[in-house]
Amino acid sequence: MKQIITFGEILMRLSPEGNKKFMQANLLEFYFGGTEINVGISIANFGGKVKHISCVSNDFIGDTAISYIQKFGVSTSAIVRSNKPLGVYFLEVGAVMRPSSISYNRSHSSFSDIQPNMVDWENILKKAKWIHWTGITPALCKGGYETLKQGLILAKKQGIAVSADPTYRSGLWKYGENPKDVLSDLLNYSTIFIGGINEINEVLETSYGYSNEDFIEASKKLMERFPNIEKVFDKIRTSINSSWHKIRARMWNGKEFRETSDFDITHIIDRIGTGDAFAAGLIYGLQQFDDYKSMEFASAACALKHTYEGDVNYATVDEVTAILDGNISGRFNR
Amino acid sequence: MKQIITFGEILMRLSPEGNKKFMQANLLEFYFGGTEINVGISIANFGGKVKHISCVSNDFIGDTAISYIQKFGVSTSAIVRSNKPLGVYFLEVGAVMRPSSISYNRSHSSFSDIQPNMVDWENILKKAKWIHWTGITPALCKGGYETLKQGLILAKKQGIAVSADPTYRSGLWKYGENPKDVLSDLLNYSTIFIGGINEINEVLETSYGYSNEDFIEASKKLMERFPNIEKVFDKIRTSINSSWHKIRARMWNGKEFRETSDFDITHIIDRIGTGDAFAAGLIYGLQQFDDYKSMEFASAACALKHTYEGDVNYATVDEVTAILDGNISGRFNR
Amino acid sequence: MKQIITFGEILMRLSPEGNKKFMQANLLEFYFGGTEINVGISIANFGGKVKHISCVSNDFIGDTAISYIQKFGVSTSAIVRSNKPLGVYFLEVGAVMRPSSISYNRSHSSFSDIQPNMVDWENILKKAKWIHWTGITPALCKGGYETLKQGLILAKKQGIAVSADPTYRSGLWKYGENPKDVLSDLLNYSTIFIGGINEINEVLETSYGYSNEDFIEASKKLMERFPNIEKVFDKIRTSINSSWHKIRARMWNGKEFRETSDFDITHIIDRIGTGDAFAAGLIYGLQQFDDYKSMEFASAACALKHTYEGDVNYATVDEVTAILDGNISGRFNR
Amino acid sequence: MKQIITFGEILMRLSPEGNKKFMQANLLEFYFGGTEINVGISIANFGGKVKHISCVSNDFIGDTAISYIQKFGVSTSAIVRSNKPLGVYFLEVGAVMRPSSISYNRSHSSFSDIQPNMVDWENILKKAKWIHWTGITPALCKGGYETLKQGLILAKKQGIAVSADPTYRSGLWKYGENPKDVLSDLLNYSTIFIGGINEINEVLETSYGYSNEDFIEASKKLMERFPNIEKVFDKIRTSINSSWHKIRARMWNGKEFRETSDFDITHIIDRIGTGDAFAAGLIYGLQQFDDYKSMEFASAACALKHTYEGDVNYATVDEVTAILDGNISGRFNR
Amino acid sequence: MKQIITFGEILMRLSPEGNKKFMQANLLEFYFGGTEINVGISIANFGGKVKHISCVSNDFIGDTAISYIQKFGVSTSAIVRSNKPLGVYFLEVGAVMRPSSISYNRSHSSFSDIQPNMVDWENILKKAKWIHWTGITPALCKGGYETLKQGLILAKKQGIAVSADPTYRSGLWKYGENPKDVLSDLLNYSTIFIGGINEINEVLETSYGYSNEDFIEASKKLMERFPNIEKVFDKIRTSINSSWHKIRARMWNGKEFRETSDFDITHIIDRIGTGDAFAAGLIYGLQQFDDYKSMEFASAACALKHTYEGDVNYATVDEVTAILDGNISGRFNR
Amino acid sequence: MKQIITFGEILMRLSPEGNKKFMQANLLEFYFGGTEINVGISIANFGGKVKHISCVSNDFIGDTAISYIQKFGVSTSAIVRSNKPLGVYFLEVGAVMRPSSISYNRSHSSFSDIQPNMVDWENILKKAKWIHWTGITPALCKGGYETLKQGLILAKKQGIAVSADPTYRSGLWKYGENPKDVLSDLLNYSTIFIGGINEINEVLETSYGYSNEDFIEASKKLMERFPNIEKVFDKIRTSINSSWHKIRARMWNGKEFRETSDFDITHIIDRIGTGDAFAAGLIYGLQQFDDYKSMEFASAACALKHTYEGDVNYATVDEVTAILDGNISGRFNR
Repeated sequence: MKQIITFGEILMRLSPEGNKKFMQANLLEFYFGGTEINVGISIANFGGKVKHISCVSNDFIGDTAISYIQKFGVSTSAIVRSNKPLGVYFLEVGAVMRPSSISYNRSHSSFSDIQPNMVDWENILKKAKWIHWTGITPALCKGGYETLKQGLILAKKQGIAVSADPTYRSGLWKYGENPKDVLSDLLNYSTIFIGGINEINEVLETSYGYSNEDFIEASKKLMERFPNIEKVFDKIRTSINSSWHKIRARMWNGKEFRETSDFDITHIIDRIGTGDAFAAGLIYGLQQFDDYKSMEFASAACALKHTYEGDVNYATVDEVTAILDGNISGRFNR
Repeated sequence: MKQIITFGEILMRLSPEGNKKFMQANLLEFYFGGTEINVGISIANFGGKVKHISCVSNDFIGDTAISYIQKFGVSTSAIVRSNKPLGVYFLEVGAVMRPSSISYNRSHSSFSDIQPNMVDWENILKKAKWIHWTGITPALCKGGYETLKQGLILAKKQGIAVSADPTYRSGLWKYGENPKDVLSDLLNYSTIFIGGINEINEVLETSYGYSNEDFIEASKKLMERFPNIEKVFDKIRTSINSSWHKIRARMWNGKEFRETSDFDITHIIDRIGTGDAFAAGLIYGLQQFDDYKSMEFASAACALKHTYEGDVNYATVDEVTAILDGNISGRFNR
Repeated sequence: MKQIITFGEILMRLSPEGNKKFMQANLLEFYFGGTEINVGISIANFGGKVKHISCVSNDFIGDTAISYIQKFGVSTSAIVRSNKPLGVYFLEVGAVMRPSSISYNRSHSSFSDIQPNMVDWENILKKAKWIHWTGITPALCKGGYETLKQGLILAKKQGIAVSADPTYRSGLWKYGENPKDVLSDLLNYSTIFIGGINEINEVLETSYGYSNEDFIEASKKLMERFPNIEKVFDKIRTSINSSWHKIRARMWNGKEFRETSDFDITHIIDRIGTGDAFAAGLIYGLQQFDDYKSMEFASAACALKHTYEGDVNYATVDEVTAILDGNISGRFNR
Repeated sequence: MKQIITFGEILMRLSPEGNKKFMQANLLEFYFGGTEINVGISIANFGGKVKHISCVSNDFIGDTAISYIQKFGVSTSAIVRSNKPLGVYFLEVGAVMRPSSISYNRSHSSFSDIQPNMVDWENILKKAKWIHWTGITPALCKGGYETLKQGLILAKKQGIAVSADPTYRSGLWKYGENPKDVLSDLLNYSTIFIGGINEINEVLETSYGYSNEDFIEASKKLMERFPNIEKVFDKIRTSINSSWHKIRARMWNGKEFRETSDFDITHIIDRIGTGDAFAAGLIYGLQQFDDYKSMEFASAACALKHTYEGDVNYATVDEVTAILDGNISGRFNR
Repeated sequence: MKQIITFGEILMRLSPEGNKKFMQANLLEFYFGGTEINVGISIANFGGKVKHISCVSNDFIGDTAISYIQKFGVSTSAIVRSNKPLGVYFLEVGAVMRPSSISYNRSHSSFSDIQPNMVDWENILKKAKWIHWTGITPALCKGGYETLKQGLILAKKQGIAVSADPTYRSGLWKYGENPKDVLSDLLNYSTIFIGGINEINEVLETSYGYSNEDFIEASKKLMERFPNIEKVFDKIRTSINSSWHKIRARMWNGKEFRETSDFDITHIIDRIGTGDAFAAGLIYGLQQFDDYKSMEFASAACALKHTYEGDVNYATVDEVTAILDGNISGRFNR
Repeated sequence: MKQIITFGEILMRLSPEGNKKFMQANLLEFYFGGTEINVGISIANFGGKVKHISCVSNDFIGDTAISYIQKFGVSTSAIVRSNKPLGVYFLEVGAVMRPSSISYNRSHSSFSDIQPNMVDWENILKKAKWIHWTGITPALCKGGYETLKQGLILAKKQGIAVSADPTYRSGLWKYGENPKDVLSDLLNYSTIFIGGINEINEVLETSYGYSNEDFIEASKKLMERFPNIEKVFDKIRTSINSSWHKIRARMWNGKEFRETSDFDITHIIDRIGTGDAFAAGLIYGLQQFDDYKSMEFASAACALKHTYEGDVNYATVDEVTAILDGNISGRFNR
């Protein structure tokens, strides 16, 4: 079985239990996460063979991060170490009309030490069938951008599928490159686009709206600009408040537009990593199912992720499939 | 005040806090439960005098189980000990579209050592006015079946009320007897039937549907077959998802059909033991109220149980009655 | 910046985690609260300068209470000490149709030692611009009543704003005075009335209903009787059940009647102190905004408080304002 | 089997986990205790049949206290209820040279409502063989003194053994009686004296020192003054620091002086209730063993109690006996 | 790097936090352990490449066990699944003179399903350089004995080192074989004997004492009987009480007797798995060091294990070596 | 009352509960600390009036740090904010022969933004009587050094006492200055030297040993080089292992050498911040007592700090004094 490759920063997440604020707490729950490793772990939980590439701190925190990932059977043999500390993010979980708040400590983290020569792409891609990247990695540091690009070039050469989730987060991007240029550069090597109107507008410098018509138009434009992109998937979240969302998805694959119906998530446990669960569902799905079934699988996976604490989607293929089969009443598995 | 007798296995329940999976946890909450002891404790919380019969392990876990039950004032003097370990079940609590998962470790538990000669039915029933049994006990082991049967025969002879909750769980029943035969045998000694279409179909080998008409028809058929059964009560659960249910109940007492309106349980805390709370509400209610009032009381008790963690219904008669009086807005008790 | 003065008992609050009952718990969460200090802390969190006056125990519990309040930057220099223990209240948090239950241990608490000579009103009011009182303080003990009255007389003399939340709790009032007389006496010195039909009926010995018409009528009557009262604000809570409320507010300021729309609080975290958050929002708001905007601000503050554990409203002005600007979808603050 | 009777206040104990101060904590562990109920529960854990008499609050805290005691099989049928709150004590557990600190909230607790007419001594003592009292009860309130005295008079009349632990705590005794007079009065009905030089000096108004010679002399004097006292037992604690004590005991039974060797308690878990464990060990022991063996049993019980969290001694007879047999190396019980 | 093979049952360990009894707790800490997997994980923490062979339950508990082991980088590819539940043990941790208590639930666990045909010894041993077994495995079930024996026969044939820790636990051994015969049978294939006088006496049916002279004599006798055994290592524990032990070791390698000095473990955190840490230290050591240095390394590893909660030794080679270099003062690693 | 000024970085401390490793935990305890704020808070707990100067992050973590310090009544009005994250350190607490491990994330923390123009020394020192600095601040960043120096120059000019704890930590000092030069520069403005042989050797480039003779010689040399230094205090720690230390102190004040006897800390709870407790004890003491009494007070304070979790010394003057009066047996404070 060939591997799926994810590449990106691993962060320690720290948050008070439940909906407490830091000011109220003296205990914090901690997890490890990061958009790409979240995707990797979720695919591993679907039974996929995954290798994650990253750079973590050379201390007991880095050891703990590696051990956390091994727990899920994701290969950590391509993770390198740095003397800088692991990135951290602090999270206060909101409720009802109170939004969650996040504060990052990642600007000079171990991942910022990543350099192209630290990753043996040649060997890694020999055993790979898919590589997934997001817009966070090239936003963090030049080394992240360059290392990723090197991998994508090689992947394209070898015909390996490349999924892109070019999330644009303006608070990052401090090392001097232009986001639009960098993301466009990397999209040249990508085959699956996971993202919506905002990401397309960012890259194409357009201003499409959120309607299905606009989505189709925008997707077509995107594929014109990047002819290597074969499919565009977009997850749509409707927020009633912090605790209650609805999720659906839509797609344009060059031939047809499809959309799923809503999943009604009446009591959210944790929304971090739900987008990553969608991406992971797609990557897993597209290897087994047709495009629409893959999108449905991804949406159900995304919906399920809202019920797990932490960044990671624990859902198995059977659990996702059960939902697609209509078993959403939550009857016991005895 | 004469006693109400419950008889059945006591299990240790282990589950991670909140909605965590075992894989995420390193702390587990533990409770003791089991369908019959749940009924017993709930009746004791209504002020009833209850004695529970069981067989627990002869170690500090068995001691803890006994002490847990004494806490509620349920008599433990008829509990015997075995060198086998207490049964355990592991629970992962779901949310929204994620179902809860259960795994049992009870096949060779202390309860499997129960034998008719360990229970002094003669003396116990002398001070008893009611005995409650469920379909779990005769499913677990031959000793459970035989011991129970001995008690029911004597109870019938003495005119003691016998309520039956003949839940059929196919995963049990490994010792060679036919479920239908065994349950029918025991129903011959029972006066109150707590169960719905599925249980009736199982026993009568019929295939009634879920409509009220079918329910009435099925109940009549059941009473024909078991003329000792005087009343049939059925609790109906509508699941929106794992976190949000509605509960109502219906009955046929040979003369009239009645049903309650829905209780809307918008934020479930713990659904384990809610059926047992319904049974307990009935057993308590039928000693004070008419059939319909008893069923309403039982439904409100069942609804309230969804708000307590653990297997046990902590609701008092006053608390249940307040709900029947329309106080469901959750105003403070100061 | 001149100070806002709050005066009242500080209580230790003890409750099992989540929705557990004391009988199920062996760990309790503790907070400090009390209606007036809740108001004070909330105003401090809005950036106001607040001094709280109270009498706490002369032991490590009193030390902890003082330290808890200092955490929020509220001045504790006017808090005196007594050899009696700090008041305590025990709370079991309900859910869905289960109401919360409270039990108080405050009858002979440190606050019952408060005497007029312990508070240097002269000096305190020199630097003050507002004083807030509630109906709890004069209900607790004669010393509370007399000390408060002394402060209000002086405040009126100096033209300091006086907000009154004359909550009537019949379980208190054990020291011999008549609630109606005492509350009326104190209302003579007050300029803002925070309370609804029940409080007005109690004081005026009337029997108005809950309609807007009645509210306007009652408010006019109140202002006739207490011409110093300039504005009446009323917060209205609609309870679907213990876990789901709606909140809105209405006002009569002698000239116009206004009411807000509903805030839908679908998943309550903690409703204790939400009324205090409303009062604090008003006190803060009326110093910056017009009456209606102040009431809206107060309602949003009240709604937000339902999302914080404990008695205290942690919301900042920016957080409240964001809600008034329509950001109730709970999107992340990154 | 006849009952052993204990009579006294039940307190809720609240303390931060481990060695935290309240100022550092937001979670508290809670237990129930009180010197007499501690003795009662310990005897029940030795297999004795115990009834405890008390007055607890008529709220969910009182319910929890009763349920806590039932857990150990101690009869709660003679516990009455009051509208006053249950007494509470707060504990900060020290370590090494830091002493533990305690603060009480019991002056107006439910127990202060106890009155002679609330206890049916006639019936209770009919089934009793032993009654144990301590100097705390008559110190708390006049009702405590009078109720106790009534019981002791009747006990003496019926020849029931009466053990006295006349601890003198000067911080109590606020209702006007003289401690020396009251304790002397009650000692007139007692047969076993559990206490040392301080208690004897207090009662006899003497000033004996701590040597064995003085102890013998003092004991003789005590027996002269109270000829009904047959035996005097004294537990001696040597403190290296808060975390490390040594325990031994000595006795004078009118005929011989004996003393045990030291138990070296190198890592104290919880020293609260260790004196009560000694008393319970004596009461249990004197019903089975000779005086010296009883004292040894009591000392080992006392030593073991230092290893249990909370007020209660969980040790069984087998566990205490194992220590007397020299098994103090802590080898596993598998 | 060739693998080290461990083979044996994996158990879930459940114990209350700190020194609480089950009766006092409602939260349990859980770990996974078992003497052989403890050895395997410890070696992996030293940097060794380890594969563990076992049979775990086919449910989420089995999944969690596997994930727990993967965390340490131990290969789980040879672990098979069974429909029986995973074995469990309950632990109450003692202190000072209170011993710890253990209760097992393993008689019909998933491991009891192990059969020779489930383990592909041929392939596993191809990549192996060492296999470690203990007396627990053949004691549990016939399948355990037979599967192990098959592996040892093959190992001997291929000249792979075999370390034996023939712990004799009389409470096991229920399937009909004679312990002495079985252990002797398996020792015929073993090269390193890790065990002391008790184990030798059990196997040889002798009655040597604990002196060094006896140890040498016994070791010689053992090597006579099992000429394949090259070295005997014995760890000696001196217990002051449950919380304070001293550890030293001695050896006879056919040529010389050596013993280490004492490690003084003044504050034990957790003694479970300390013997396994000794075995792991030896297995690791004997691949790098001479016999005495290996024994010293093993003793220091064993001593360090007493400072980690759970069954697992987290110590790295650097951490063990630092102790051998005399750094036992616990100075900070900054 | 004039203020005592402390100046330095505030760090968030994160560590698993008890002696767990990060790899074993999913909950972390958090505190705030830092050598200078530890000193400041300890002095505040002695009743001193303290202002702390620092630069914290402009997010909810910085808010929480400020609120944490306000809890102790330390003035935070001179704390400025930065967009960089607050520094963090991770701690694994060792036991017995296992050392504690620390990992820092502070290189680009908010404090590294500190600049001389952010501190209004003029105004701050007007109300000050003492300023304390340590070798950490000038080691962290040039801005720290320059800001501190500016304050010290002014302090010297105004005759304010300056205590220096010139701890040398080689892992810091990355911005290019020479530690010896910087520390010497700052010592020119200091009056009290808190540190031992290592610090003196570092600054003077000498190689004195640890004997009292060497200490006196070295102190004299130091005072020759820095004639403004009036007194040298040295705390000596003897480690039996991680869990058991002894503490004593010695001094040279230009006229006499004195040393205290040992405090035996048999069960350490937390050794972080014990040196800071010593410094705080000296600063407090030297304002009330003679030099020797001050050193004794500081030593007892240092010993007591070992019994509190977290960085902060909670001891009051009464608690420290009680120890000096010989009350180290840990008898209850009731």
